[in-house]
Amino acid sequence: MKKANKKVCAAIVIIGNEILSGRTQDVNVSFLAEWLNNLGITVGEVRIIEDKEESIINCIKQIKKKFKYIFTTGGIGPTHDDITSKSIAKTFNLSCGYHKEAYDILEKYYKSGEFNKGRKKMAKIPDKAALIYNPSSGAPGFIVENVFCLPGVPSILKSMVDGLKNKIIGGKKILSKTISIITAESEIAKSLEDIQNKFKNIEIGSYPFFRFGKIGVSIVMRSSDKNLIDDCSKKIINFIQKKKIKIIKRD
Amino acid sequence: MKKANKKVCAAIVIIGNEILSGRTQDVNVSFLAEWLNNLGITVGEVRIIEDKEESIINCIKQIKKKFKYIFTTGGIGPTHDDITSKSIAKTFNLSCGYHKEAYDILEKYYKSGEFNKGRKKMAKIPDKAALIYNPSSGAPGFIVENVFCLPGVPSILKSMVDGLKNKIIGGKKILSKTISIITAESEIAKSLEDIQNKFKNIEIGSYPFFRFGKIGVSIVMRSSDKNLIDDCSKKIINFIQKKKIKIIKRD
Repeated sequence: MKKANKKVCAAIVIIGNEILSGRTQDVNVSFLAEWLNNLGITVGEVRIIEDKEESIINCIKQIKKKFKYIFTTGGIGPTHDDITSKSIAKTFNLSCGYHKEAYDILEKYYKSGEFNKGRKKMAKIPDKAALIYNPSSGAPGFIVENVFCLPGVPSILKSMVDGLKNKIIGGKKILSKTISIITAESEIAKSLEDIQNKFKNIEIGSYPFFRFGKIGVSIVMRSSDKNLIDDCSKKIINFIQKKKIKIIKRD
Repeated sequence: MKKANKKVCAAIVIIGNEILSGRTQDVNVSFLAEWLNNLGITVGEVRIIEDKEESIINCIKQIKKKFKYIFTTGGIGPTHDDITSKSIAKTFNLSCGYHKEAYDILEKYYKSGEFNKGRKKMAKIPDKAALIYNPSSGAPGFIVENVFCLPGVPSILKSMVDGLKNKIIGGKKILSKTISIITAESEIAKSLEDIQNKFKNIEIGSYPFFRFGKIGVSIVMRSSDKNLIDDCSKKIINFIQKKKIKIIKRD
């Protein structure tokens, strides 16, 4: 995979009323975010939007120039509520008839007689889009400019992303280090702020947790510079030890 | 709780790098969405954004007129990365010093000597904001115009929403009915589309699932009109029975 030597930032767009209604718990954001992080790409924003043509078009138009890559999930299946293809086609003023390569793939995938109207709909993909192959269930995703359209079913999505590695340019890998301690956030707030002020290029997050009846904090450092993280980590451990706070985990 | 007789639509804004990095799986969207649905409020959009003042201000400015209510989660704790209060204050041109009521609450909540600088920071809330009381950990959320700021920790957030019922006006309750069947989506796509075209005021979603080695579809109808859902449901069951497809669950 190609790599850029700078920060690469992506957005994720989850298309699906089932997520907005709370009926379905989204798991694609965390999966895609981790996968992108491993390629050196940070996720700058996520939007969860309705299965509505207008919502999809407006959303993509608003963010397509702001991010290097946009990954959408959902809405590329065979039913009436799957409108991602035609909405993306409209966004980019493309036609959206049968895509020859996608049609051929689906025709081969289904047994004779099984390639019905619903399945044929999945071959309707914006003109000239590159395909994202689907090793689990045939129907491909597609790429139009910097927009990568993936399915919403997590297991199918996961099976497809490996094929994307040669289609995107990653950045420097984002490293992270976590120190989990037993204390209240407010006990370390001042010291942590001082360290954040010294290490402007590290993103330091503080996340409280409640586990086994104890209150704790996970301090997370994120940066693409390993040495910087190591230095920062030393400083943090230093003040934690001075305050006699118990460290329960480092990773 | 007051109720409007029309559709009421809200947005959710999740503020947190830990969600964007994939480190933490968000669960607040599905909780808030279900809770709002029960009050007759639909969620029209969700955004997950960075812990950055600029991102928060831009996001709220973009959506505050589009939705009746906006619920933010995250960023109201004691550490340097908790910047929701000051960002919301800037969005609405308000000052953000110690909020008297919030200060009094926190001063009482903590034992003498425990009310340190970090904890005092949680009393810095936009001027004149109404508070959202926190029965689990003291530090309140707040309301500025139509923006409701809640914490990111799911258990604390859950303990706070009950106190909001008299502060928002709900709409007609959104009802839903699900029929789960054993078939592939494409086998029912055409019939389902025909029914959707007849029932324009029902949102019909089709969601494939893979369970116990079988392929199935959950058909979900959503509307505030019970009779309409019942009619629509009969039509769907009718074509399912004609196609001799097995129904495994109705709820």
